[in-house]
Amino acid sequence: MRALRYHGPGDIRLEMDIPEPECRVHQVKICPSFCGICGTDLHVYQSSNSLPFKDTPHPITGEKWPVTLGHEFSGEVVEVGSEVRNGIRVGDRVAVQPTICCNQCVPCKEGLTNCCDSFGFVGLMGWGGGLSDYVCVDARFAFKLPDTIPSDIGALVEPLAVAWHAVALSALKAGDDVLVMGAGPIGLAVIQCLKARQPGQLIVAEVAANRRKFAQQFGATAVIDPREQDVVSTCKLLCDGQGPAMAFDCAGVAASIKSACLATRSGGTVVNVSVWDGDIPFNMNNLLFGEKRLLTALSYTTADFEAVIHALDNGSIDAKDMITRTITIDRVVENGIMALTHHKDRDIKIVVDVAAR
Amino acid sequence: MRALRYHGPGDIRLEMDIPEPECRVHQVKICPSFCGICGTDLHVYQSSNSLPFKDTPHPITGEKWPVTLGHEFSGEVVEVGSEVRNGIRVGDRVAVQPTICCNQCVPCKEGLTNCCDSFGFVGLMGWGGGLSDYVCVDARFAFKLPDTIPSDIGALVEPLAVAWHAVALSALKAGDDVLVMGAGPIGLAVIQCLKARQPGQLIVAEVAANRRKFAQQFGATAVIDPREQDVVSTCKLLCDGQGPAMAFDCAGVAASIKSACLATRSGGTVVNVSVWDGDIPFNMNNLLFGEKRLLTALSYTTADFEAVIHALDNGSIDAKDMITRTITIDRVVENGIMALTHHKDRDIKIVVDVAAR
Repeated sequence: MRALRYHGPGDIRLEMDIPEPECRVHQVKICPSFCGICGTDLHVYQSSNSLPFKDTPHPITGEKWPVTLGHEFSGEVVEVGSEVRNGIRVGDRVAVQPTICCNQCVPCKEGLTNCCDSFGFVGLMGWGGGLSDYVCVDARFAFKLPDTIPSDIGALVEPLAVAWHAVALSALKAGDDVLVMGAGPIGLAVIQCLKARQPGQLIVAEVAANRRKFAQQFGATAVIDPREQDVVSTCKLLCDGQGPAMAFDCAGVAASIKSACLATRSGGTVVNVSVWDGDIPFNMNNLLFGEKRLLTALSYTTADFEAVIHALDNGSIDAKDMITRTITIDRVVENGIMALTHHKDRDIKIVVDVAAR
Repeated sequence: MRALRYHGPGDIRLEMDIPEPECRVHQVKICPSFCGICGTDLHVYQSSNSLPFKDTPHPITGEKWPVTLGHEFSGEVVEVGSEVRNGIRVGDRVAVQPTICCNQCVPCKEGLTNCCDSFGFVGLMGWGGGLSDYVCVDARFAFKLPDTIPSDIGALVEPLAVAWHAVALSALKAGDDVLVMGAGPIGLAVIQCLKARQPGQLIVAEVAANRRKFAQQFGATAVIDPREQDVVSTCKLLCDGQGPAMAFDCAGVAASIKSACLATRSGGTVVNVSVWDGDIPFNMNNLLFGEKRLLTALSYTTADFEAVIHALDNGSIDAKDMITRTITIDRVVENGIMALTHHKDRDIKIVVDVAAR
């Protein structure tokens, strides 16, 4: 079968003769329909510091380079393992939660698979991926898509689940004012999930003009260009002089988390949704004065996948405008990864029509 | 009257002819009995970057240097304002909450006086202080001491309230394993307040040998010298391989908060009790992986003062061994501030017997 495989930084190959995976008794075999390209894919393409390992096999999959890519995907079930009992059937369209976890550590046993010590992703650390003709996953991680959700939107369930998880964790209440730092794909997904909770002011700070436009389209009540306007004082002005009750950092740079901490009102909550490259300069007093708390949101659990599919189904999230480009599997590097790298704010989500040849 | 006044870094003077303050209608006039010397006093003595201002009057008190020192104190009520209705009477022994706040901002109105934008302390920012013959405070900030609590222990209510506030905020449950980074006066107070909540393991990391000894005396189940033992792996070992549910940073250096974040188990809570000197290098991923949350605890509210007095009264906190030295007001610099500065781990709390001559 075909599979788009990662052989190291700058070396992604569409291979045509990869063996089809075998469906184990607890698994379903899926023919991927659409697969999104994620910021993590960009990092992995550029740097060997990123997630997959060259020489050390992943502790759960036992795999190292080359690995198949694609962790944001929908597909059609083509085979169901003999011990699968969750009602999934051949022909079902599904969104896939690409979680790899040990199922044995304390967090896994508590359902916090995202906190597993050996946590990983299908499509990055082995067990195949969505950018191939077939992939097998644990049946509990395949979520049936209702007829209201087309398969390309099904590929957005994963990034939306990241955002949903962060917003659910924050316990934002209807009417709360909120600030979002950064309107890249995850920031825009956070905006959509926030919008579904009917916040008060929904302020977005983003340097890229096109992303600010997307933010407004998805529900921002105010947008700020942090190079032109002071984020902190603007937020105070917009929110009764106090600042928003919550701020989400989806930019992941020292300046964004600093603004998030300072803009949030006393007693408020800062939620970090970013993964960081290493140490940043950080002043704890920016949280301390005002006794603000900092939450971190990592990935998702099955509950978030279920909730996102429900929200897409009932229309409280309308994600179709997030897909700004659809490409074929043979053009992932040129029209996907390079396009997103060199034109940061032109697209939101580029999805691969995996079956198209 | 006598008052120990701060005229700037390195310049603290015992003055003998300061006018007695006048008791306003909502105030009580107090004759201070005992007054603790705090780390903040040490900072203020050394550096003009600290809290009091030379040229800018405090927004609430309107005062600038010189100001009277002493914010951890007990005393005897000698006069009660005509509109005081909370039952405080002349002759009552009281502990004083030295809070200065505006009473008008949103946090003040919500009872979060510690988050007031203009927040300050009697004994640092004006309105007199505990190191004088008389001081007047808002009657709601004077808490009657029961007969079980001697007046020198009454001077410990303030630092214990800082610790109580942090522990209350953390929502620690009985049986939870906990790590305390740093066993200075606040760390030791945190240990006492934690002990009152019957934790599981109570692990303390502290470089100074004498402080480790105090920590054990106050209830630590294990002590770590971070120069000799790795804090993170030792904590994992001591707590079922997972690490403690909570960690309190009472050291306020980059290495301590890093260890606190890494040692805490997945889904756990880090509580910052320190005030910081500025930016530190900080890796947000140390919270993100394991989805840990960071709370910050600032000062206290009246509820914490009431709770500490109750805990001292019923014996769930026994603080008498925290006072390691009692001095007179004319020796505060030499035997108090300099002693604490140059022999960091010899004493825990030095208190001034204010009335003694």
